[in-house]
Amino acid sequence: MGVGMIFSHEYYMKMALKEAFYAFEEDEVPVGALVICNNRIIGKGYNQTERLKDVTAHAEMIAITAASNYLGSKFLEDCTLYVTLEPCLMCAAALKWARIARLIYGASDPKAGYSLTKGKVLHPKTEVISGILEGECGSLVTEFFKQKRGK
Amino acid sequence: MGVGMIFSHEYYMKMALKEAFYAFEEDEVPVGALVICNNRIIGKGYNQTERLKDVTAHAEMIAITAASNYLGSKFLEDCTLYVTLEPCLMCAAALKWARIARLIYGASDPKAGYSLTKGKVLHPKTEVISGILEGECGSLVTEFFKQKRGK
Repeated sequence: MGVGMIFSHEYYMKMALKEAFYAFEEDEVPVGALVICNNRIIGKGYNQTERLKDVTAHAEMIAITAASNYLGSKFLEDCTLYVTLEPCLMCAAALKWARIARLIYGASDPKAGYSLTKGKVLHPKTEVISGILEGECGSLVTEFFKQKRGK
Repeated sequence: MGVGMIFSHEYYMKMALKEAFYAFEEDEVPVGALVICNNRIIGKGYNQTERLKDVTAHAEMIAITAASNYLGSKFLEDCTLYVTLEPCLMCAAALKWARIARLIYGASDPKAGYSLTKGKVLHPKTEVISGILEGECGSLVTEFFKQKRGK
């Protein structure tokens, strides 16, 4: 845990998972995200690309916009983003523009994760922690696609 | 000109430039974008990151969301995006998710353009044309930063 953090990464990731469940229930690829600043949730979101018919409506993008709106700042330099799945290139690049202090994700995304891209995608000052509740976060996505194929 | 196009690339880029001018007037980095489908503007936008205090509010993102809203589809497979400046990684990745048919931009962005990234960022089917009204598109950005430094 970092300085000033009163809750664990698992605590926040569970809340991000709750967001991901909302997506699952709405037949969206189940990804959820939170932005935390001073132990407070200042933005959250879940994937709504199908409902909104908008590729930009990823969980992270919604959470970033909400957090920036809350702070009245486009920079999230003192914030942490929790997300259940490794961000894609779009979301990672948005996190770079926002200069987020910390990115913490659950499961890796071997198909569309930003880390597939060579070179530095995130801001050099952004700290990354991965694998928090990896099993739960990943299973939710796997289960979603299994059900999709079954239909 | 592609099949079915009744207006030139320059014609549409001038309209994208008009959007960029709105950004300039509002003290935003002057970038403007349009999404065209069947010779019709179905989405447009200009950079509003400062006004909205939101890094995701790039001209292209706003235009993509507007176009998807118009079509009721997250895929823009028959659409062309015109933008005055080469898209950044966030916007290029959004265009990939949207499977845009064509990306046409004015000036290159040697600092934050997606083409700085090694590997394929756009969808393999996306056709790219650059350098349309490059001088006007680029000068607007240069002039903006010159005035900024002068202040």
